[in-house]
Amino acid sequence: MKRRKFVIGAGVSAVAGAASTTIPKPAFSANQRELSMVTSWPKNFPGLGTSASRLGARITKMSGGTLKVNVYPRGSLVKSPDLFSAVADGVADMYHAIEHYWEGNTKALNFFASVPFGLTATEQSAWINFGGGQELWDEIGKVFGVKPFLAGNTGVQMGGWFNKQINTIDDLQGLRIRMPGFGGTVLKRVGAQSITLPSSQIFDAIETGKLDATEWFGPWFDYEFGLHKITKYYYYPGFQEPGTSLSSSINLDVWGSLGRHHREIIETAMAAENDLVLAEFNARNIKALNLMLTNNQVNLRRFPDDVMNAIGNAAGEVVSEAGNSDPMSRKVYRSFLKFRRQSIKWSKISDQAYWNARLLPFSYG
Amino acid sequence: MKRRKFVIGAGVSAVAGAASTTIPKPAFSANQRELSMVTSWPKNFPGLGTSASRLGARITKMSGGTLKVNVYPRGSLVKSPDLFSAVADGVADMYHAIEHYWEGNTKALNFFASVPFGLTATEQSAWINFGGGQELWDEIGKVFGVKPFLAGNTGVQMGGWFNKQINTIDDLQGLRIRMPGFGGTVLKRVGAQSITLPSSQIFDAIETGKLDATEWFGPWFDYEFGLHKITKYYYYPGFQEPGTSLSSSINLDVWGSLGRHHREIIETAMAAENDLVLAEFNARNIKALNLMLTNNQVNLRRFPDDVMNAIGNAAGEVVSEAGNSDPMSRKVYRSFLKFRRQSIKWSKISDQAYWNARLLPFSYG
Repeated sequence: MKRRKFVIGAGVSAVAGAASTTIPKPAFSANQRELSMVTSWPKNFPGLGTSASRLGARITKMSGGTLKVNVYPRGSLVKSPDLFSAVADGVADMYHAIEHYWEGNTKALNFFASVPFGLTATEQSAWINFGGGQELWDEIGKVFGVKPFLAGNTGVQMGGWFNKQINTIDDLQGLRIRMPGFGGTVLKRVGAQSITLPSSQIFDAIETGKLDATEWFGPWFDYEFGLHKITKYYYYPGFQEPGTSLSSSINLDVWGSLGRHHREIIETAMAAENDLVLAEFNARNIKALNLMLTNNQVNLRRFPDDVMNAIGNAAGEVVSEAGNSDPMSRKVYRSFLKFRRQSIKWSKISDQAYWNARLLPFSYG
Repeated sequence: MKRRKFVIGAGVSAVAGAASTTIPKPAFSANQRELSMVTSWPKNFPGLGTSASRLGARITKMSGGTLKVNVYPRGSLVKSPDLFSAVADGVADMYHAIEHYWEGNTKALNFFASVPFGLTATEQSAWINFGGGQELWDEIGKVFGVKPFLAGNTGVQMGGWFNKQINTIDDLQGLRIRMPGFGGTVLKRVGAQSITLPSSQIFDAIETGKLDATEWFGPWFDYEFGLHKITKYYYYPGFQEPGTSLSSSINLDVWGSLGRHHREIIETAMAAENDLVLAEFNARNIKALNLMLTNNQVNLRRFPDDVMNAIGNAAGEVVSEAGNSDPMSRKVYRSFLKFRRQSIKWSKISDQAYWNARLLPFSYG
């Protein structure tokens, strides 16, 4: 089945087991150094696993082979999905994942992934690179023993696939929806039944009527997964994850032990992936959306403003609770909130106003 | 005067003179190779010159000094502003500029910079990296002897500073506005007087009433330039340049002569800058806009839909004429148009719908 290709685990909760103890140690020599990179993705998983592989290959290639990165897909080197601890403890040298997987350490890490009604991909990159975000992230990293980097972004996700229409907030009452993370908590707060389910079981649960709705990613993945074949409505926008960052962190001792040019190579490869992953998601989402609209008559629907407004209030609460859960989270939350507040004024008159104007009925091409 | 810092030339037309003939030849040795990078920017010009310097420094650093890039600001190594020819002819090894400066060679190059009502930064990156754009750009590059790369983006620019209100299309009749490139051609077509003026003369022309309006960049540069002090209205959106790409091209023979890891280093450094330049423009635009709104009570105004619609029709004509001006332009234009048409469907339900929902009056933070 084609959709199997698009089945990934549900983050930390999906796989259990202790870290393997038979890890090959990094090789040191005058001419070559090897780093192990553990990822949250199955081998060659589109957009995510392929980005991890490209990142590893790029670093290896740029260094002329003096810094070789060996990429280990999910479960292959470290059995536990807690790759953060594996890297912090030096069991592996780096990970490629999404920060909200490690929110058990501090909720602050959610802000370096994506939070409901938070920042989009380009805003996230602006905040982290030039708005004080990286400094705060480094501060958290120091506590745990890792050096973190932005390493990609999925862009705005979709609201999800629904078998019933959402016309008022009442339509969410009791709705059985699979939406992991903060998004699920938000929907629960407005009355839905948020159901936790590994991605491998989503398809059957929808088909057998155990689920009314499910979130996944966006047109690219959703189309391959086949969700358009078994649900009625495709809702937007994806308020729950407006631009989810991929991240890659390196054990802090390992980072400190690298030469200046190896550090520069790693840092640059990360920034390049941050650009390219978003570009790939956008290009392939565009293509898949057009295929779905042309070949499958997918019924696109926008969440009504009243519903978005109620969800927005709930999102504000959920994010605020996370942002006030410990001193580090509070610090990050304050920086994030200030940037978001100011950024809204700019997006309103830049991209957003531009896109609104571009939709006017003038003739072009 | 502080604003002097923000004076740059007006592209190809601003400086005359032949390419210098006393160029140091690239050094070849077993351990070190030097490349000359000529840029369109004064030394340390914010966002643009600093990106060129960072790019050069990164390549040098990542290579451990085996590939040293020497950055030459505007006018310092090559006297002619036609850096494209200088690199194509091997007078310099690479340039850092904007493709529309070289539209004299083929109008197709405009599509790799920005065209009125065209693609935004993230759409541009998606088209070029994963939508067939790079292949077409490489095809053009081959004809002239250069290998081109995306190397940054300014994001959506502003519509400009005006001393009179634009409420209907009639208000543009006879308006004396400084807007270079396609934007100026578009405004001329709807009745404005498009005036060509080097950036060093804009300020005085506005103050003495010789100009009614001028385009510049966005809040970051505009605030430093001081345009808010001498004009009445700040109009958005910047239909004329919705996401202007910086680019960096390398002489094709030089590119071919580089080792695999040096090529990988250059390619990765370019992609990293594409992410970072946009992030810096966004972060600094956000900050400057908030300063202007708080301290200077700048009067922000949106072009009315009727005006945007009329300008959109004129933009459609201007871009179509350029896109049909030669066979290569036609090929690029067709690819661009298809991507734009499909991308509009995605932006409408992703970033645009998300940002519209984020503006609802819910409580957040």
